[in-house]
Amino acid sequence: MDAISVIRAKRDRAELTDTQIDWVIDAYTRGEVADEQMSALAMAILLNGMNLREISRWTDAMIRSGIRMDFSSLPLPTSDKHSTGGVGDKITLPLAPLVAACGAAVPQLSGRGLGHTGGTLDKLESIPGWRASLSNDEMMQVLRDAGAVICAAGDGLAPADKKLYALRDVTGTVEAIPLIASSIMSKKIAEGTGALVLDVKVGTGAFMKNLDDARELARTMVGLGKAAGVNTVALLTGMSTPLGLTAGNALEVRESVEVLAGGGPADVVELTLALAREMLAAAGVVGGKDPETALKDGSAMDHWRRMISAQGGDVDAPLPVAREQHVLTATASGVLTELDAYAVGVAAWRLGAGRARKEDPVQAGAGVELHAKPGAAVTAGQPLLTLHTDTPERFDYALEALATGITIAPPGTAHQPAPIILDRIS
Amino acid sequence: MDAISVIRAKRDRAELTDTQIDWVIDAYTRGEVADEQMSALAMAILLNGMNLREISRWTDAMIRSGIRMDFSSLPLPTSDKHSTGGVGDKITLPLAPLVAACGAAVPQLSGRGLGHTGGTLDKLESIPGWRASLSNDEMMQVLRDAGAVICAAGDGLAPADKKLYALRDVTGTVEAIPLIASSIMSKKIAEGTGALVLDVKVGTGAFMKNLDDARELARTMVGLGKAAGVNTVALLTGMSTPLGLTAGNALEVRESVEVLAGGGPADVVELTLALAREMLAAAGVVGGKDPETALKDGSAMDHWRRMISAQGGDVDAPLPVAREQHVLTATASGVLTELDAYAVGVAAWRLGAGRARKEDPVQAGAGVELHAKPGAAVTAGQPLLTLHTDTPERFDYALEALATGITIAPPGTAHQPAPIILDRIS
Repeated sequence: MDAISVIRAKRDRAELTDTQIDWVIDAYTRGEVADEQMSALAMAILLNGMNLREISRWTDAMIRSGIRMDFSSLPLPTSDKHSTGGVGDKITLPLAPLVAACGAAVPQLSGRGLGHTGGTLDKLESIPGWRASLSNDEMMQVLRDAGAVICAAGDGLAPADKKLYALRDVTGTVEAIPLIASSIMSKKIAEGTGALVLDVKVGTGAFMKNLDDARELARTMVGLGKAAGVNTVALLTGMSTPLGLTAGNALEVRESVEVLAGGGPADVVELTLALAREMLAAAGVVGGKDPETALKDGSAMDHWRRMISAQGGDVDAPLPVAREQHVLTATASGVLTELDAYAVGVAAWRLGAGRARKEDPVQAGAGVELHAKPGAAVTAGQPLLTLHTDTPERFDYALEALATGITIAPPGTAHQPAPIILDRIS
Repeated sequence: MDAISVIRAKRDRAELTDTQIDWVIDAYTRGEVADEQMSALAMAILLNGMNLREISRWTDAMIRSGIRMDFSSLPLPTSDKHSTGGVGDKITLPLAPLVAACGAAVPQLSGRGLGHTGGTLDKLESIPGWRASLSNDEMMQVLRDAGAVICAAGDGLAPADKKLYALRDVTGTVEAIPLIASSIMSKKIAEGTGALVLDVKVGTGAFMKNLDDARELARTMVGLGKAAGVNTVALLTGMSTPLGLTAGNALEVRESVEVLAGGGPADVVELTLALAREMLAAAGVVGGKDPETALKDGSAMDHWRRMISAQGGDVDAPLPVAREQHVLTATASGVLTELDAYAVGVAAWRLGAGRARKEDPVQAGAGVELHAKPGAAVTAGQPLLTLHTDTPERFDYALEALATGITIAPPGTAHQPAPIILDRIS
């Protein structure tokens, strides 16, 4: 077996055999297959595709490159959620304690933001004292105490994926459905959850710009999950405008706490409840507390407080606020028909909420606050957005990103905001 | 400008701009674009192609990565030949002094063999004392004295190509017509020849297995040569059986000297004369000595002796002979209808005539000698091939390569050997 024959096979549109896939993933992890060989193979996969058998074996080989966690000793069934990433997507924050309050344990290994989409760990790190890195024992303890844990994935989990993801990032090979699907699913399967709900985002602010691509990705991932014995379903959800009214780390924590307190923006509440019900159903939890009740009766908030405190977070400390604000007002009266997710995401990123390289720090208080959502009637001069940053020299750069993302139509224009949930794949 | 945007452009089937091509070749040569980025780009080029403008610019950028030689101070026009490589292809050896004898100067920068095809420098190095490396001044002196020079290309010539070729070799991206064409032509244009004849091999023992691919490669290279001001033509020639009766370093030198002495196998003589006439015509040499005459009257041999002597070669010394021989005989009586070039090439390689890695040494005396060519009537038990090697433990390994490459049809079977010259592109 050698790298060139595997590359040639995929280059010439052959199916890779199980032996070829197992060998290439193992040899790449060990450094025997060089980066320049793996990137040529990744490009061949991007352009020539892989079928479900190949993707499934590829995923499995990446899982076998590291450890696989096991939560079978917990008294509760486990259920997790993964979002493909969007703007203002803070759903994990209220969702994990909410599901815990309703009877499933949530072992959530999360990542950091890169580019215009935020990362769950960055958001939680805006809470004074909270720490993302836990040992396996600590993780299990938080899970037992709070019913949910959100922490960073250790190095032992799917190391082949870690190496391959970094390579794809610099070689123009990120946008390959087989590689996206196997990357996500290898981590989630190795994480050891019993059930998994995928939130596949579709729209300008998402990785998948159209419903067909999103559906293909969702189907592929659901297939991979089921093949690995993880009960998996996917919701396809809209990401052409930001979720909720905030994009930015501390801003999104604040909004999440509002949801846990029984308030918060309607779209965030709707999606949180839908995903919670899917997670509970996938875990086989029936007849327990309804998620809507858990938001109202304070039990979800209680789990949140226990979960954050267990990881050193001071739940009562004030959240960081950016040093400078700039208010963007409506330039005309009429109906707001577009507030583009990608434009808002890039603006929040430029204000300091995100990072361009994975070594960069993020600003806890930076981001964008929305005062209106598409469909709203607005009056010229009324505040539309507030930009937050510690580095006001970035305002212009952020405003530039927003220049083409906002559309106000003449008064009386009919505008029906798109639904949040577009499809369900199981 | 950054590597990822260039990779993405070609991945998404866009044409690369002149600026993108210039930047990526320069940045790769300087080490700013990493190997893993260039290999992803090479795979995207292999799968999505480049048009003639892109290939032309790519070639030009590789030429500009190093020096370009200049022979305009010579009193004679210059003409060179390049073969895409085959089995038993010793044509350069008699051809260069022959063309010199007929009035054009031949500045031939050659390479070494890799895999089953031999290398001109390896062949000449079987002549005691002959050395491949010359300074530019020495090269010019040999060219003035002998009218022809065959030597190794210096490091200064198209360094981008050198780096890219080594990368393609290990990443399954050799077989891309735009990259093959630009690699060959960047070296030949940088070499500074005024005219160029391409011998594009087609068949089992060649890089191009079918006529359509070979034609596309030939057209591309002819276009590149002309665009760079080099008068370029191509012959498409058959390579499904070895050229002549020998494959191996000293064995091929011996056969070349036979041709220069007015003898030698008919196919080698035919192709040598055809290429010589093309080289002279392309260089604008008209009314000079006819190549056939130059083989008969000893003037080609005279140029050979001056050329070899000028590079330290002892033209009168006996050529090395392998320590062991093994004779392969016909297993049946009938008509030899197939003696496969690839099988013979691999056998010669395994006997020690070629190398698996570019650091490996080669055996001067190793190789395969043919006693019959396709179309010949053979009798059971008559010698078909003699295998030569210094390492007889390799005989079995070589015989294995020949197991499926020899076909003897029943006596009386009609068999018309394929013509040598299949097409001409100008």
